[in-house]
Amino acid sequence: MAETPDRAQHRYEEIANDLRAAIMRGEYREGDRLPGENTIMQRYAVARMTARDALAVLRHEGIAMARQGAGVFVTSRKRLVRDSMGRYSRKAVSTSQFKADTTNAGQQANWDHESAEKPATSRVAQMLGVALGEPVMETVYRFFSDHRPVQLSWSWEPLALTRGTPIELPEDGPTTGVIARMDSIGIHVDRVIEKVTARAATAAESERLALSGRGAYVMVIERTHYAGDLAVEACDIVFPGDRYELTYTIPVPALAE
Amino acid sequence: MAETPDRAQHRYEEIANDLRAAIMRGEYREGDRLPGENTIMQRYAVARMTARDALAVLRHEGIAMARQGAGVFVTSRKRLVRDSMGRYSRKAVSTSQFKADTTNAGQQANWDHESAEKPATSRVAQMLGVALGEPVMETVYRFFSDHRPVQLSWSWEPLALTRGTPIELPEDGPTTGVIARMDSIGIHVDRVIEKVTARAATAAESERLALSGRGAYVMVIERTHYAGDLAVEACDIVFPGDRYELTYTIPVPALAE
Repeated sequence: MAETPDRAQHRYEEIANDLRAAIMRGEYREGDRLPGENTIMQRYAVARMTARDALAVLRHEGIAMARQGAGVFVTSRKRLVRDSMGRYSRKAVSTSQFKADTTNAGQQANWDHESAEKPATSRVAQMLGVALGEPVMETVYRFFSDHRPVQLSWSWEPLALTRGTPIELPEDGPTTGVIARMDSIGIHVDRVIEKVTARAATAAESERLALSGRGAYVMVIERTHYAGDLAVEACDIVFPGDRYELTYTIPVPALAE
Repeated sequence: MAETPDRAQHRYEEIANDLRAAIMRGEYREGDRLPGENTIMQRYAVARMTARDALAVLRHEGIAMARQGAGVFVTSRKRLVRDSMGRYSRKAVSTSQFKADTTNAGQQANWDHESAEKPATSRVAQMLGVALGEPVMETVYRFFSDHRPVQLSWSWEPLALTRGTPIELPEDGPTTGVIARMDSIGIHVDRVIEKVTARAATAAESERLALSGRGAYVMVIERTHYAGDLAVEACDIVFPGDRYELTYTIPVPALAE
């Protein structure tokens, strides 16, 4: 039953390790151009594909990024910080929270969204506690920081709750933000549950987040807003693996007197 | 400034996609053996290395695991769930919390640990708010579920707080668990901050967690216990990328009357 780990060191990994170490030692700093494919081919006596793979490893790790026609450069290692506390007040709006996160990192935010009525898939039905195929409003968001895609989300709300109300369309009604919107129709959210996982990126996520195709991974929050036992919104939030830090503050009850 | 995503589809990725789709369709179920290298070589007319790489992709994703000499098998996709709430009560002990997590997943827990006095590195000094080189007690844990390594952690406590007290050694004193231990010396933790990130696994982590070396990633919690402004413990908790779900429940304050 023991696993057989695949620890064979490949040549491109050795080269990636060398370059990573040089970055860590400060020989290449943020914004510096890394050696190109031709330089690596000569220096290590390897084929172009091996040089390319070595650079791809560093891009995959987020340590470096390619600029069209200019080469591969050391990136800023600054993660965006998403703090869960204070995020879910009765007045907060997720898009403005995102804007605050990017401002804190000295970056510029923009986003787009699209809403459409859909039948609940089995997974959405399970998250919302509704029957398979029940109508839900699906809203898909893409969030950009300095014009790089840094977050995708898919939000679902049961139309049984919102149909015909002013908040049926999440972003186009008189109020925005799940909690304030639900308050406006008399449904009072009392808690939010966030389940955090990491996993390999799907092809669609890699494309939409401009991730490297090989070994790309994402961090995912599966989030549900509850009013008592009623799930009023479910959402998948997908981040490039290494661009975010999710912060949670957990209060510890005081000693009993 | 635009990124150049590397979307070239490699042959081994096509094969991995085929196998993944067959698993998703239920053609291979949990515990089933996947086609071996020889079968894949014949079926797709590829070299052994390509067949091996295709299987490595699925192992990397956690969908499949190798059993020495027996082949590659579809794994259980059940993640261990680590719920942050209730975890940090005044009586809780992290090792017993881990045991509860594994029991909930129908698995068996075991762990080991080792403590030693160390000078604070710059990162540990920053986390604990102590001077560089200040003495700290470092305790390294390895956690296993059904004898597979599923969690590593490095815990640091300032010896300025604990030296000469019964809790100097975290696991060998009269009480265990950071909060209860600190209570016993009159330091009352009031909150825990967890910062969650994902990143490429280091070579040491890959080895200790038996991860595949290519493109392996981990989920990391950087945790600090605070008593007011005083950091009393800092800890890095490292999980294989896709074996855990971290659950956080965030209370939303009620409407003002």
